[in-house]
Order: sequence, then C-alpha cells, then structure tokens
Amino acid sequence: MTREPAILLDEAREGSRAALARLITYVESGGQHHRETIRLAYRHHAPYVIGITGPPGAGKSTLTDQLVTAALAAGSVGEIPVAKIAVVCVDPSSPFTGGAILGDRVRMQSHSTDPRVYIRSMATRGHLGGLSLAVPDAIRVLGAAGFSLVIVETVGVGQMEVDIAATADTTVIVTNPGWGDSMQANKAGLLEVADLFVINKADRPGLRETVRDLEQMLDLGERDGWRPAITTTVAADGTGCARLWELIISHAIDRGLPNREQHAERRAAGEIDRVLTAVVSHRVHELHGGADFTRWVHDVASAGANPYDAADELLR
Amino acid sequence: MTREPAILLDEAREGSRAALARLITYVESGGQHHRETIRLAYRHHAPYVIGITGPPGAGKSTLTDQLVTAALAAGSVGEIPVAKIAVVCVDPSSPFTGGAILGDRVRMQSHSTDPRVYIRSMATRGHLGGLSLAVPDAIRVLGAAGFSLVIVETVGVGQMEVDIAATADTTVIVTNPGWGDSMQANKAGLLEVADLFVINKADRPGLRETVRDLEQMLDLGERDGWRPAITTTVAADGTGCARLWELIISHAIDRGLPNREQHAERRAAGEIDRVLTAVVSHRVHELHGGADFTRWVHDVASAGANPYDAADELLR
Repeated sequence: MTREPAILLDEAREGSRAALARLITYVESGGQHHRETIRLAYRHHAPYVIGITGPPGAGKSTLTDQLVTAALAAGSVGEIPVAKIAVVCVDPSSPFTGGAILGDRVRMQSHSTDPRVYIRSMATRGHLGGLSLAVPDAIRVLGAAGFSLVIVETVGVGQMEVDIAATADTTVIVTNPGWGDSMQANKAGLLEVADLFVINKADRPGLRETVRDLEQMLDLGERDGWRPAITTTVAADGTGCARLWELIISHAIDRGLPNREQHAERRAAGEIDRVLTAVVSHRVHELHGGADFTRWVHDVASAGANPYDAADELLR
Repeated sequence: MTREPAILLDEAREGSRAALARLITYVESGGQHHRETIRLAYRHHAPYVIGITGPPGAGKSTLTDQLVTAALAAGSVGEIPVAKIAVVCVDPSSPFTGGAILGDRVRMQSHSTDPRVYIRSMATRGHLGGLSLAVPDAIRVLGAAGFSLVIVETVGVGQMEVDIAATADTTVIVTNPGWGDSMQANKAGLLEVADLFVINKADRPGLRETVRDLEQMLDLGERDGWRPAITTTVAADGTGCARLWELIISHAIDRGLPNREQHAERRAAGEIDRVLTAVVSHRVHELHGGADFTRWVHDVASAGANPYDAADELLR
C-alpha cells in the first residue's frame, strides 16, 4: 500500500527511517507520489552536500566514515548546525545495486548503527532525468527530514559519475598512489568539478609521482579563482582526515556557502538547470518518435534537406 | 576576404584543397557563411564514417595510415566506391591545436603527400554545439567534395571523445597491452558506442590480460545483438591490419550500412538528433540568464517553490 507523502514526511522528521526510505523511493522511482513528495521536500532547507567520487577501491567508504566522525565532532558547517548526517551511495555503472554497495555499508562500520547517521544506496531511476535528478531530489528529501549534511559517495570517474558528484557544494575526488592513470581519461571533466583532491592510502609507494601528476593536471587551468588543494590521507587509521575536514570547511567558506541564503540560491540555480535540461531532453526524445521527425529524416537522407532546418521546424 | 560557399564547393569538387579547407573552417567557426555551407553540403551523399578513438600514444595515427592503405586497395565499402579518403583529427581536450595533431600528420607519412588523401585537424568550435556538431558538419562538407570515406580520429576515451567517435558508422576503440585501466573510467560510455576493439602494439607484454579485461567488459552487456570483436594489430609493421579492415567491413554489412539508402537514413536521424539537442541546450542556456530564471531561483531558494514547477513555467 502506498502512503501519503505528507504523513510520511511528518514521521521521517520525527525519526522514522522506514518513512524516510519510502519517500526516497518515491523520488527515485517516479509514480503517483513523486510530484507531491518534491513539493513537500523543497519547502525545507537544502542540506550542505559533500560529494566524494573516485575509482572503485580507492577507499571512499572508509574516508566517508572518517568525515562523518569529523562532522559530528565539529557540530556544524559554518552557520549550518549538523546534528544528523546522511550518506547516499551511488554506483551509476551498475543497474543492479548489489555487492559493492552492500559491501560499502558493511565497511562503514563505525556508523552503521549510529542513530545520527542514515545510509542509503541509490539505483538508476528509470524516468525523467535518471540519477542526475534522483540524487538532488533525494538530497532535498533528506533535508526535509532534518539532515543538514549529506555526503554523496559516487563510484567511478566517468562523465556521469562526475556530473552526479558535481551536484555537491564541495566535490572531493579520491585517488591512490600510482593511480594517476585512472584520472587521465576524464581529465577535463574532473578539472571542471573538483574542489579538492585526496590521495588516500598515502602510505603506499608512488605518492610523489601521483602528487606531481595531479599538480600538472591542475596547472592546466584554474576555475573561478579556486585551485583545488591536494591532500593525503590514510583513511584506515585516520591520518590526514582532520586536515581533509578543514579543507572542506575552507572551501565551503571560500564559496560563501555556510551562509544559508547564498547556499540556498546556488543550489536552487543548479536544481532548476538540471530539471530544465531533463525536461527538454525528454521532449527531444519524444520528438524523435514522431511522424514529423521521420519525415525530416527522409528529407535529410534523400531530398537535400539539412538538420538545422529540421530542428527549427520541429521545435516550432 | 570571405568567398561564397557555392563557388568554393565547385572548386573543392574539382580538387581544390584550399577551397575545401575554407568550407570546413566555415562550419567550424560559424559566422555568415555557416548556414549556406550547411545547405549546400547536405545536398550530397553522406560519406561512410569510421571513428578511431583511444588514449594518446595508442598508435591511432599509424593504424589510420594502414586503414587508408587497405581502403584504397579495396576500392569500396560495400556499395560505396572509395576513390578519395579524408582523415579528420580531433583532440577535444586541447583548445589550442598544436604539437600532438601536427605530430599525427607527420606520423601519417605514407599518405601525407597522396593526392587521394586529405588530412584535416579540427579545433573546438566556439558556437552552437561545439565539436559534436562541427565534426558531423565537416563530414558532410567532405562528402559534398567527393570524399566517400572519412576516418575520424579522436584522442581520449572520456565521454566527449566517445560522443564524437559515436557519430561514426563504425566506431573502433584502440588500446594497448597493459592499458586495460585506461578504459575503466568510462566503461559504460565505451560499451555503448564501441563496434570493434583493437589492441595495437600487440607484440608488447600484457596482451593476454588486456584481452581478458576487455572480454570481461563485453560480458557486461550486448547492444542491439552486436558483440564487438576484439582484434590485435602491430600497426607499425602492418600485422593484423588487413584483418581489422575485414572486421570493419563485416560490421558495416551487419548494420546494412553499405546500402546507400539505409546508411543515409541512419546518419540523418543522428544528425537531426544532435542539432535538436544543441539548439535546445542553447535555449536552456539563454533562459538561465533571464529575469524569470532569477525570480524562480529566489522562489526555490526561499519561498518553498520547486524546480519542477519552475521548469514547467519557464518552458511555457
């Protein structure tokens, strides 16, 4: 039986994890309660969002675990008080959530039973916008349920993973010594979104070369006057994690994000952009199936028409 | 002084490379002659397009050189006679075309002075759609000038490179022994577009592991009933290149593409889709700057509005 989003949200705000899980499923899977859940969720403050992305095995879960500890100890991100933290685990490359994500949950041992910490994995959403809308929507549901800090952990460094990570206020890219190559393929994409680089497992050989490779990558271009810092951690024993938390806070302050008003406006602009793009892509997709589209394909293929005239007419 | 596209196209069809270069610059840079060049170019047959993509240093230019030799010797792709071949070199990650591409031209030694072969590098286009439209448009200009086969060589395996490579009729991904990692980051993107995998420099150590890694990647999913073949080459001495050409022809035949009508319809559908997407993204970008957008950002940030209602209204 499906239940009313308004009732579920009241329960979620009072601490019900079952109600919260149901609401996230509503925004993840679409369906009749999707829009109403959205309406309710966006009436509350957006949380501060930290994105953690990197190749599988880089140690993202252990790092996230350490960041949760640091954030709970600090008690705030700038003006935003942090009493509860949500962790959203996303693996865009696997349509079936399974081993890896379950494994992540198990690995986040110190907080898996902590009542202040909520962990949720997200699968690909089949409707409008896929994960690029489902993740920001879930973030808003978490915000409405009282989570003022959300950590989004995304597996992989391809463009899709990077796009999801980029919905964060502070985006952290995790790599390991000797793994410079894993960044090469999507260098431009990473440079555009990374706010911080972390070389985890820094006690392994190859650290110096990896730092040098990353620095060279960063030499290619600065973005909005922010050059991402490169820091090192050994998440397994906590080395460097306090410093990483400080760097995240510095970035947040540099962007003026702990100020609730500025933070809210920045997030809102990104949210509208993403929905606009998804709606419009959906319309293009619908055009694709239509009779007019088919006629234009024929005209371009054999009657000397061109796709620019076709697009002008189809969009009229 | 700019010159009329119609006059330039006549000259290009008679063999003038200066006229051809000027026309490609028109579609690459936008400006007053862009639309007229498009109109003229799309009145002619689209060429058959082979896309070659892979990380820097994989040996794409040497392979392309060998494919040019094979294609000229074969004289056709299915029903499409091949008398002249164009090679388009694209490096999306470098805004300044420079060393690498010039180096590629020098490396394509056997054909750099062959009158049947035209080599052109393309830089990022600043206007609507960037390279994702400039490359297909340039392909049509080459088709109009009488080139029935175009090889598009793209550096890198990130999503942008892969999108450009995917505008080809047959898309070939090149890697080397021991380079399995270079594919990992954008596994899903590559699987979606690759028609063939080539492991070049196959005389180097690590071949078996690379074949195994690729096979495992392919086990993840078949696309339209086509499982990409994996073949090996040593392009430097020609080993395996005749076999690679055969596999390209098999793929072309499997897709029914050497049939001019089917080929034309498939390309036209992709061309219209790409222009539609570019036009629509451009409109979203324009909305972004407007007063209505700014008002909605404020309402989502502080008045409980949501981005779905915003998108609906902004697109009305």
